[in-house]
Amino acid sequence: MSQLPETRNARTADVVDFPVAPRVRVAFGDQQSARRISLSPKYGNGPREVDVRYLWSGVADAPTVIVQGGISADRYVTAPADAAPGWWQALVGDGAAIDLARFRVLAIDWLIPAELGTSTVSSEDQADALAALLDALGIARAHAFVGSSYGAMVALAFAARHPQQTERLVLLAGAHRTHPLSTAQRSVQRGIVRLGQQSGQLDEALALARQLAMTTYRGSAEFGRRFAGDPEWRGDRFHFPVEDYLEHQGRRFVERFDAERFLALSESIDLHDVAPEQVPVPSTLIGFPSDRLVPLADLCELQRRLRGPATLEVVESPYGHDAFLKEPEQLAPLLREALR
Amino acid sequence: MSQLPETRNARTADVVDFPVAPRVRVAFGDQQSARRISLSPKYGNGPREVDVRYLWSGVADAPTVIVQGGISADRYVTAPADAAPGWWQALVGDGAAIDLARFRVLAIDWLIPAELGTSTVSSEDQADALAALLDALGIARAHAFVGSSYGAMVALAFAARHPQQTERLVLLAGAHRTHPLSTAQRSVQRGIVRLGQQSGQLDEALALARQLAMTTYRGSAEFGRRFAGDPEWRGDRFHFPVEDYLEHQGRRFVERFDAERFLALSESIDLHDVAPEQVPVPSTLIGFPSDRLVPLADLCELQRRLRGPATLEVVESPYGHDAFLKEPEQLAPLLREALR
Repeated sequence: MSQLPETRNARTADVVDFPVAPRVRVAFGDQQSARRISLSPKYGNGPREVDVRYLWSGVADAPTVIVQGGISADRYVTAPADAAPGWWQALVGDGAAIDLARFRVLAIDWLIPAELGTSTVSSEDQADALAALLDALGIARAHAFVGSSYGAMVALAFAARHPQQTERLVLLAGAHRTHPLSTAQRSVQRGIVRLGQQSGQLDEALALARQLAMTTYRGSAEFGRRFAGDPEWRGDRFHFPVEDYLEHQGRRFVERFDAERFLALSESIDLHDVAPEQVPVPSTLIGFPSDRLVPLADLCELQRRLRGPATLEVVESPYGHDAFLKEPEQLAPLLREALR
Repeated sequence: MSQLPETRNARTADVVDFPVAPRVRVAFGDQQSARRISLSPKYGNGPREVDVRYLWSGVADAPTVIVQGGISADRYVTAPADAAPGWWQALVGDGAAIDLARFRVLAIDWLIPAELGTSTVSSEDQADALAALLDALGIARAHAFVGSSYGAMVALAFAARHPQQTERLVLLAGAHRTHPLSTAQRSVQRGIVRLGQQSGQLDEALALARQLAMTTYRGSAEFGRRFAGDPEWRGDRFHFPVEDYLEHQGRRFVERFDAERFLALSESIDLHDVAPEQVPVPSTLIGFPSDRLVPLADLCELQRRLRGPATLEVVESPYGHDAFLKEPEQLAPLLREALR
């Protein structure tokens, strides 16, 4: 039995055996398990054995589609039996846009430095882990790698390093490098968490960092519409409508995430830098004009520079960066088309 | 002699007498001084005597133009003799767009709750202080109130409450209310400072809050152009080019500002709410499409709703909200025209 690092996500807490038979099977055959793979981390000293936790859902022998989300997403793209909905439940399921009657969906929990024996984890490390996992599972080639946000970055790293292991990419709200303004916003988030580490106010700091992150995820117009009300005096100070939302989001995040994981994955986004010219795999890019974190201009540049053929789909949405989570009806036909 | 609260701004530290003859005179006749006025703060319990520190520059007997800037600006719009340049030095001076050979410029240091005996200061309080100062100085009516950022908010409050005391408004990058996304960003800044207050890491927290503010002031394209370089490993962690800029700005702010002042003036921005229909004074609005803090759409709404005639000038700039500081060449003809 291997030592897997603890996470605060209750859904992962019971998966500690290695190697294990799937503990939960639903109608279409889920595997939630862990595989030990070998990996040479970008910022490490040579090869390292790592346990990769994954979920592999869908009909046996169907083509596999890798699906990865943002840094706070986990392998539960879709829910195993009796569990809470997965983070992309609306788009992944029996009969859904990513149809588990036609595909098997494979997703991993992001690796963190503690697992790699490093102080830093790169998008390349995540990509290499996925490539090694495909080998371990006997998947010669994925039908597609569908990545959103950090998942799109990892998909690009995957296609640059292991182009034979996926037929196509579908990239939502993620590019070959981050925008310096977004780096600045994440840098302040990390600064808040480090301040909390120094003073022992870790939960408060992590919640506040998440609050800041939330201000970057949604579109400006949506904030304007939802939180236009008057402030309220509550004895200590005035509270603004948007603050209740932010504080709620901050508290929820602290319940399921920890500071070290946040620091490492946030930094990993900013270190991400893949030359599009090294990506020969056909790609569908999906961008949102209201996304202030990943400007559409960066996806335009990515499209121009990719070596393989690339289509850019522009989806209007008030939800900004979060449109990859909040617009299943607009995204469904694009995903169906891209996976055809 | 009155008790004036301490500030960290060295330039104000020597002005503590009341009433005083001007201590510095330049060719065109500066007065930097303080006047005791009476004020009923919005969130206070009745009238209160307050010392208002002001600078009044320009030829004697010329019409007075009130000029107020953002929350971190002070009365030194233009420099008194032998001092560091004022915060709007490029636009206010002998022969400049706001010509001290034709106008006297009047500016105050923002009031803070400690001076008002309250826990909160409103844009109306600042407006009332300026109106009372005009009375005290024998100025029946200002030629114009030129306000930028928070100064534009105070100008609107001034014109709604004291419409007889200014002939016109010139409002740059400020509106009748704040945008909820901007409120969210400032809320997190205040949360950082409160976290620092709780843990005794006040300077670090104030610097970090300022870093966050800086990410909201400049345009996205300018961040992209200036800070596109590679990160650098410096032993402790990777440092990104934009972080050097942010950290420098944070340190500078801590040297000249304190946490209580920041908390109060930041909150005052978010509490600001003036009905444009109550402003009968002719207005020139100047907005910047790259300003993410005060969206141009809010200035469009302000223009539509103002009771008096209103012109909206749109100035293209990469500098976002800071364009009111960084575009003197584009602003000069607009200011000259507005003050004609």
